[in-house]
Amino acid sequence: MIPSFPVVFALYPGVTQLDFTGPYEVLSRLAGARCVLASTTGQGICTPQGLRFEGLQRLSEVRECALLCVPGGYGCVQAMEDQEFLGELRRLAASARYLSSVCTGSLLLGAAGLLRGRRAACHWAWREGLRAFGAIPDEARVVRDGHVFSGGGVTAGIDLALSVMAEVAGERHAQEVQLAIEYAPQPPYDSGRPERAPAEVLAAVNARMQGLRAEREEAISRAAGRLKAVA
Amino acid sequence: MIPSFPVVFALYPGVTQLDFTGPYEVLSRLAGARCVLASTTGQGICTPQGLRFEGLQRLSEVRECALLCVPGGYGCVQAMEDQEFLGELRRLAASARYLSSVCTGSLLLGAAGLLRGRRAACHWAWREGLRAFGAIPDEARVVRDGHVFSGGGVTAGIDLALSVMAEVAGERHAQEVQLAIEYAPQPPYDSGRPERAPAEVLAAVNARMQGLRAEREEAISRAAGRLKAVA
Repeated sequence: MIPSFPVVFALYPGVTQLDFTGPYEVLSRLAGARCVLASTTGQGICTPQGLRFEGLQRLSEVRECALLCVPGGYGCVQAMEDQEFLGELRRLAASARYLSSVCTGSLLLGAAGLLRGRRAACHWAWREGLRAFGAIPDEARVVRDGHVFSGGGVTAGIDLALSVMAEVAGERHAQEVQLAIEYAPQPPYDSGRPERAPAEVLAAVNARMQGLRAEREEAISRAAGRLKAVA
Repeated sequence: MIPSFPVVFALYPGVTQLDFTGPYEVLSRLAGARCVLASTTGQGICTPQGLRFEGLQRLSEVRECALLCVPGGYGCVQAMEDQEFLGELRRLAASARYLSSVCTGSLLLGAAGLLRGRRAACHWAWREGLRAFGAIPDEARVVRDGHVFSGGGVTAGIDLALSVMAEVAGERHAQEVQLAIEYAPQPPYDSGRPERAPAEVLAAVNARMQGLRAEREEAISRAAGRLKAVA
């Protein structure tokens, strides 16, 4: 199959763990893949809920990257201000065969200047923020534009990873992994998208997101400004 | 909502990480929940693919458990031989409001003697093993029998966790979390169950599972024997 296919997950404090543990479960089963977790400092990462991951590399010490994966999370606001993090995304992207993001990870690809003119997915509540980076928000669950794959919110990472796997190793391989992880989802409700969720459910989630909105929009605006300054 | 709802994930080396990171993502968003990772030794856990989790407690030091979650994984064979692990599952189960398992985690609940006479789900390839522990294999993705919730293979943990959340905190809360994590899955193929997957895909996965079969069946047989000896 593929002799060596380094998959690099670029993490940061406050990442949403399922954004990358979902794709990790899929991609770590890709023949020839070697999954690497990395962050700016190389120190362990803690999620907002307290889950700790250790054994990370420093992003600056990662030499090879066939597939770059950028997850989203509450911490994307701080990551957008981390120039070293964004610089390393650019460096790795320059030689990667594929770029990918899950959820608000596409805002980070955008802040790194990697989505100009490209269609991209994002968590439904934050999708419009992509425009500031010259990207075109797309409401599809998995979006492919050239060598860039992006997924919608959190759980979309599993669909995304299977799509990437089909591209890299063929449909058969992706189907085998799908069967091995019994991915035949049966959500108990039809509440996973804003246009399908009951109105009061959408209102409640929107109200909670509202508290994050000002800070995120300011961070996006600052990151977009810096991007224009260097362009 | 719920004043305090400790959720205990009972881990072991060789666990399949998505078996518990999926439910963790859901259940950590449950109002009042406090998620705890614990193992027999309290030392960090490494998955077969090399993902490392730290910050675990010793199972013997976990005092409170409202919901016990037992994930599956290649390491379930060794965990079935770990009498301290199985003993701690029994101790925690005695006071827990709910028990749950994902994938081959139900074999561990079974080996602990917690599924006698109960219907339970399991990964499709290993479901029949439940009979040795007096459980009734059920092919549904999420099975509830009394206070015991069990899920099928790996990704079923997300569906399972939303069902548990609906039970604990109400449908509305589960629907809100489903929307927040954009759980409106779109698998790229219809290959997630053995009766739906293309025949050659099923044959390839079965061939790979075959290599594990003798060891697993022996471990199940030994664990079932010990269970009868103490019954």
